[in-house]
Amino acid sequence: MNRLCDLLSIQYPLIQGGMIWCSGWELASAVSNAGGLGTIGSGSMYPEVLEEHVIKCKKATDKPFAVNLPLLYPQIDQHLETIVKHRVPVVITSAGSPKKYTSFFKSHGIKVLHVVSSSAFALKSQEAGVDAVIAEGFEAGGHNGREETTTLCLIPQVAAAVDIPVVAAGGIGSGAAAYASLALGAEGFQCGSVFIPTPESSAHQNFKDAIIAAKEGSTKLTLHEIAPVRLLNNPFYQEVVAAYNEGANVEELKSLLGRGRAKRGMFEGDLQQGELEVGQISAQLDKITSASEVVARIMREYNELATSTFQCF
Amino acid sequence: MNRLCDLLSIQYPLIQGGMIWCSGWELASAVSNAGGLGTIGSGSMYPEVLEEHVIKCKKATDKPFAVNLPLLYPQIDQHLETIVKHRVPVVITSAGSPKKYTSFFKSHGIKVLHVVSSSAFALKSQEAGVDAVIAEGFEAGGHNGREETTTLCLIPQVAAAVDIPVVAAGGIGSGAAAYASLALGAEGFQCGSVFIPTPESSAHQNFKDAIIAAKEGSTKLTLHEIAPVRLLNNPFYQEVVAAYNEGANVEELKSLLGRGRAKRGMFEGDLQQGELEVGQISAQLDKITSASEVVARIMREYNELATSTFQCF
Repeated sequence: MNRLCDLLSIQYPLIQGGMIWCSGWELASAVSNAGGLGTIGSGSMYPEVLEEHVIKCKKATDKPFAVNLPLLYPQIDQHLETIVKHRVPVVITSAGSPKKYTSFFKSHGIKVLHVVSSSAFALKSQEAGVDAVIAEGFEAGGHNGREETTTLCLIPQVAAAVDIPVVAAGGIGSGAAAYASLALGAEGFQCGSVFIPTPESSAHQNFKDAIIAAKEGSTKLTLHEIAPVRLLNNPFYQEVVAAYNEGANVEELKSLLGRGRAKRGMFEGDLQQGELEVGQISAQLDKITSASEVVARIMREYNELATSTFQCF
Repeated sequence: MNRLCDLLSIQYPLIQGGMIWCSGWELASAVSNAGGLGTIGSGSMYPEVLEEHVIKCKKATDKPFAVNLPLLYPQIDQHLETIVKHRVPVVITSAGSPKKYTSFFKSHGIKVLHVVSSSAFALKSQEAGVDAVIAEGFEAGGHNGREETTTLCLIPQVAAAVDIPVVAAGGIGSGAAAYASLALGAEGFQCGSVFIPTPESSAHQNFKDAIIAAKEGSTKLTLHEIAPVRLLNNPFYQEVVAAYNEGANVEELKSLLGRGRAKRGMFEGDLQQGELEVGQISAQLDKITSASEVVARIMREYNELATSTFQCF
C-alpha cells in the first residue's frame, strides 16, 4: 500500500512535474495513461489555452491528471474557474502561500499538492490542509528554493517534519533515484526534466536536442535576487553572469531578463537568447524516448532495486 | 562481498572524511576502531604535527586508517615522507591532479583514493591508477566542485563512468542517505560533517554547538572565484556577501579571506570572524554523540533499510 497512489488513484507513485512551455495535454495524458500522474503546466498558458488543454487532456485519458498552478499567475481567477468547471482531479500549487486556495480546491473535491523547498514550508502546507507536499531540491530545473538544500538532504528532513505524504523532486530521472528517494522517506517522486525530450512534450526540438547534449555542470542556478532559477548555460545565461560581474542591481537584472525569455528559449527554440529551464539530470539523458517509455523504464529500474538484495554489514 | 571493504580491509564501507582542524588522530582512530576508515586531515597540520598524529593514531588503533592529503599543500614532500615512513595504509588525495603521486604511493604499497566532483575527473583518476574515487556532491561541507552537481545526480554518473569502486560523499549523515548512495551505484560512502560534533573531533566546542544549532539553509557555497567552499552563514560569510555586492574582485576577496580564517573559526571557536566549513547535513544533527555511536547509528539505520521490503509497482 502506498499513500500517494491511494490518494491520487494512480498505479505508480510517479508524478510528471508541470513545466511551463513543455507540459501540455499531450504529455500529461501520455504520463497518466502510462500509470503516473501527468500534469499540465498552466503557468505559461492564457486562460483560454489552459481550458483547451484541460478539455483535450480529459478526452485523451480517463485517468487522473493534474494542473500545476503557480500562485503568482496574474489571471489566476480564470484558471481557478477552468479547474473547477472541468473537474480537474488534482492541483499542484507552487510559488505562493498554500493558505490562499487550498480550502477552495478541497471544497470542490480537488486534491491539492504544494511544492516546497524546506521543511518549514512543508509544515505550513500541512497546516493549510494540503494532501501532500512535493519537496524539491537544488538540482531541480526551473524555479528553485532559496535554501539550496539538495534532494538528498531535503527529503529526510521534510519527511520527519510532516505526517502527510512527501513527494521527492529534483534530480530524479531514473529508477535508482526514485528508489533512493523512497529510502529517504518519500512516498512518491516527481520527474520533470526527463519528460522534456519526449515526442509528447511541447518543448521546441532545439531545446530537446540541447538537453540531450547537456553534460555535468551544464546547468546553473542564477537570478537569486529575482527568483532562483536553474537554466542551461547558454549565451543568455552568460549575459546574466556578465551583468553580475558588472554589479547589476535587481532592476537591471529584471530588465535584462525582460519578458518572454522562457517562451523564446523553450517553446520557440532560440538557444542563444532564450531562457532554458532544466535540471541537473539533463546530463544523464542521451536520447529522445516516448513518455510512456520513460515511465516504464523508471518503474522497471525501480522494481529491479526493490527486488534486489542489499548487503548487510 | 563489498569491493571497498575488501580493498581497505575494513568492516563497514564507511569512510570518515578528512577535515581540516577537525579530524586528528583521536577521531580517525575512533572511527577505525568502530569498523570504518578513519582519516587524519593533514591539510591543516605542520609536517611535525602530522607525524605526531600518525604515530598516535597507530598507537590508538591496529585497524587501517587514512591520511587526507590536499595536493596543493605547500610542504607536501615532508607529508609524503611521514606517510611512507610510518606506513600509513591509505591516502586520500584531493585538490590536485591524481597523476602526480598515485604511482609513488602505490609503489610503497599504499592504497590511493582520490576525491572528485565530476565523472570526467573520476575517469582521469582511474587512468592515473587510483584504487577508488570519492565522488563528492554540492551539499558537502568545505571545498567543493565547480560543477555544483549534487550527490544524487553525481553518483550514478560517476558509477557509470568508471570500473573502480565509487565512494559517495556529500549529504551523508544517516543510514538512509548511505543506503540511497549504494542504490545509486556507490560501493561505499564518506561522512564528514556528522563527525564534527563528536567528543573525538578537534573542532572547537563553539563550532560543534553552532553545527547542532544549524538549520536548513544555514550553509552556503561561496568564494567560487577562489575555490568554492561551503560555510556556515555567520558574520564573516555576511562580509563576503557584502564584498560581492560591492563588486569585489578576486584579489579583494582573497584579501578579505586572508590567512588563518579556518583555524580561527573551526579550531579557535571564533564564530564571528572565523570560516566555518560544514555541509548541509548540519541541519540534521541535534546532539553531540561519540564517533563510535555515529558509526553504529548509521550502520544500524543502513541495515534496517537493507532488510526492509520495498513495495513493487
